[in-house]
Amino acid sequence: MAKDLTSRAEDYSRWYNEVVQQAELADYAPVRGCMVIRPYGFALWENVKAALDRRFKATGHVNAYFPLFIPMDFMEREAEHVEGFSPELAVVTHGGGKELEEPLAVRPTSETVIGHMYAKWIQSYRDLPVLINQWANVVRWEMRPRLFLRTTEFLWQEGHTAHATREEAEREVMRMLDVYAEFAETEAAVPVIKGRKSASEKFAGAGASYTIEAMMGDGRALQSGTSHDLGQNFARAFDITFQDADGELQHCWTTSWGISTRFVGAVVMVHGDDQGLILPPKLAPTQVVIVPIWRDDDERAEVMGVVSGLKEELRTIRVEVDDREQHTPGFKFNEWELRGVPLRIEVGPRDVKNRQAVLARRDVPGREGKSAVALADVPGAVPRMLDEIQESLYRRAVAFREERTARPTSREELDKAVARGFAWAWWCGSAECEGRVKEDTSATIRCIPFEQPGGEGECIVCGGPAEEQAVFARAY
Amino acid sequence: MAKDLTSRAEDYSRWYNEVVQQAELADYAPVRGCMVIRPYGFALWENVKAALDRRFKATGHVNAYFPLFIPMDFMEREAEHVEGFSPELAVVTHGGGKELEEPLAVRPTSETVIGHMYAKWIQSYRDLPVLINQWANVVRWEMRPRLFLRTTEFLWQEGHTAHATREEAEREVMRMLDVYAEFAETEAAVPVIKGRKSASEKFAGAGASYTIEAMMGDGRALQSGTSHDLGQNFARAFDITFQDADGELQHCWTTSWGISTRFVGAVVMVHGDDQGLILPPKLAPTQVVIVPIWRDDDERAEVMGVVSGLKEELRTIRVEVDDREQHTPGFKFNEWELRGVPLRIEVGPRDVKNRQAVLARRDVPGREGKSAVALADVPGAVPRMLDEIQESLYRRAVAFREERTARPTSREELDKAVARGFAWAWWCGSAECEGRVKEDTSATIRCIPFEQPGGEGECIVCGGPAEEQAVFARAY
Repeated sequence: MAKDLTSRAEDYSRWYNEVVQQAELADYAPVRGCMVIRPYGFALWENVKAALDRRFKATGHVNAYFPLFIPMDFMEREAEHVEGFSPELAVVTHGGGKELEEPLAVRPTSETVIGHMYAKWIQSYRDLPVLINQWANVVRWEMRPRLFLRTTEFLWQEGHTAHATREEAEREVMRMLDVYAEFAETEAAVPVIKGRKSASEKFAGAGASYTIEAMMGDGRALQSGTSHDLGQNFARAFDITFQDADGELQHCWTTSWGISTRFVGAVVMVHGDDQGLILPPKLAPTQVVIVPIWRDDDERAEVMGVVSGLKEELRTIRVEVDDREQHTPGFKFNEWELRGVPLRIEVGPRDVKNRQAVLARRDVPGREGKSAVALADVPGAVPRMLDEIQESLYRRAVAFREERTARPTSREELDKAVARGFAWAWWCGSAECEGRVKEDTSATIRCIPFEQPGGEGECIVCGGPAEEQAVFARAY
Repeated sequence: MAKDLTSRAEDYSRWYNEVVQQAELADYAPVRGCMVIRPYGFALWENVKAALDRRFKATGHVNAYFPLFIPMDFMEREAEHVEGFSPELAVVTHGGGKELEEPLAVRPTSETVIGHMYAKWIQSYRDLPVLINQWANVVRWEMRPRLFLRTTEFLWQEGHTAHATREEAEREVMRMLDVYAEFAETEAAVPVIKGRKSASEKFAGAGASYTIEAMMGDGRALQSGTSHDLGQNFARAFDITFQDADGELQHCWTTSWGISTRFVGAVVMVHGDDQGLILPPKLAPTQVVIVPIWRDDDERAEVMGVVSGLKEELRTIRVEVDDREQHTPGFKFNEWELRGVPLRIEVGPRDVKNRQAVLARRDVPGREGKSAVALADVPGAVPRMLDEIQESLYRRAVAFREERTARPTSREELDKAVARGFAWAWWCGSAECEGRVKEDTSATIRCIPFEQPGGEGECIVCGGPAEEQAVFARAY
């Protein structure tokens, strides 16, 4: 534990890999590109899941489970879809000791197989809308794997809905994007920009894709959730039709939307510092760690008496007591800092005598983040302090993003801006201009943000007329 | 809905398939052997999951996630394991558009890949025990698929633990078997027999396997959960070692245990009747359905006023109000019976006048199960009645099992007994005698039950000396 952690300034990418592994969030699996999500990382993911699942159910969605294997010809029915996904497919060719007549794709996403089932289930307008979500593993072959960020297998949720009208489907797409943004900001303290994807970045087979984009601690962007308006593309490819109130047969309008274990990577990179993780209290598997301090058995008994009482009083909070004998308090402090526990409570013999405990905030290092609190006040102070930490992490992330966001008016300024963060700039809408920036700087259009300055401008690349600004950034 | 359901007496197997599909628990997927778990079936599975997960966490286990793909050579390291599983494997031979150098197995179970990771993580006795569970999908190629009971892909949990001593591992194996039995009986109202598997039925690679066996509505057995003592077999194959307190290097003792979506099939078959499902209240996605009855708008307003009040008062219960306009009350009654909702509340204009509601128990058909309850008493009566239904389902299942259980003392009696249920009989322990019964009757030894009559007897097959009784039955 608490091995030497590379600093972010020295090598951000190495810092990320080390912190993920040393904090025991995840580890590399023996199959290239795959990862193991360790108990601490999985507990974090379980909290992400619970927070999202609650929101999905509150907005009328239900969960179901569709198969892992998809017949290869399903993938081919939607032209853009197969073009986008076939380079990434894992293919099962043998089953039960025999070669299969038709090979099976391991799902990279489930629009096709779910479309097939919806065609079977939906008959009438009375069956609509269908609002289903699934929690599942998916596989997309990955040549440059990074823990959580890009792995051949990952976990996610994929919502798939079918509607009677275009307008209703569009409302669903926006509603789920709003759910994602609200979740990211409220639960994970991760500020996001909502917007539309450019044609070159949209989901293979979608009419339009929408995204929430977050800025990581090195100024790069991470696409943190997407919501797709599939129009009638998949309904046509899979014959998802319904009889409307007038008895006419119509194609459904469908949507899909997803957030994956990638989001854990965002939490790590938005909040972490050179000491390790800093987890937002609402998602932290352990919100408070109590470290008792003693030198002999008498002190131990005295201190543990107080600690047990505290733990009991804090029972609505996720508290752990670290009473391991083989480690020093200093070792424990480092370890819990590395693991990003938002609040630490220290109780030593002197604290017992003074009827107090020392509370140390993970987000404010050193003395400044420490305060002595009377024992009787601890149960009230802890939830209040956790709220403050949650708030402060969010504010800090917003401030960091603002500081790294530029509004360039020339190509030169744009190129400089994307080297350190986000650049909002006028864009004429052409794939050529988008491509030129990517070629020169490796930055892409993360989204055309909903929030626009208004008016018109000149494209930052070609100088042509532009009606919208785009957010350019290098991305994970 | 409520299409003609085949009766159980007419064709049990067809009844099962119809009820699972008509009640919308599951449907066949476009890939042979795979299924889709529909929202109603998945909600039931979510309740199973929650009830088990709570118990796993209460007994000190944590969740994690290991990869879907396993290198083929991992499977081969434990001789019995590869022999048992290779005929069932699905194999990925292509990824990212290329043929793989080494093919990958889609996990049929995860002892091997988890063993590999444990070898990496475990160094010292201080790292033990490791108590990890994972919720995952697994694939075992299935030639004769049945929804929930045998599908190529299924969902399950698999616990994998590592211990410093044989005794501790053995205690873990028994503890989890007890957790399974208590879960099955308390939550699902499914009575089970705990016992040891015979050598021919044990998990491929285990030292000993333990099981909970339940009797289905046709007298057949369903293995409903298993707990395996893996000894040091996998620790040797994957080099899972630790330094003990004396500095000596030792192999760990490992266990694994699992319950799958198969269990949903048990719930269907133990409780269902000719009208459809009967779900145990503790697991039912909808515990109470309120069906309002009206003829015109005035009555509708009046009735719905009462119904809304009831729903609000029953908010700690999972209640649904079926106020669809296009269906008659009779249609709705049938549909909710098919779906097995434990308790129905009917409210019509006359009930409003009399300040009462009619409560109808799903487990007691017709008049006998109906009672008029004063509106003010409904909030108290509902949870009490749900408890009674839970209890009564359990008692009924126990009585059914007893009635179908025989204690034969001759081969002739045994053969007759297994045609209709369970047979407890002395067994000498030889694979020959076990095999002869299987060949003649297709019944297998479901387990050697922990509960033994004591003493000794003569083997029901060969007449040789026998120290234990076995439970023989035909099985799913």
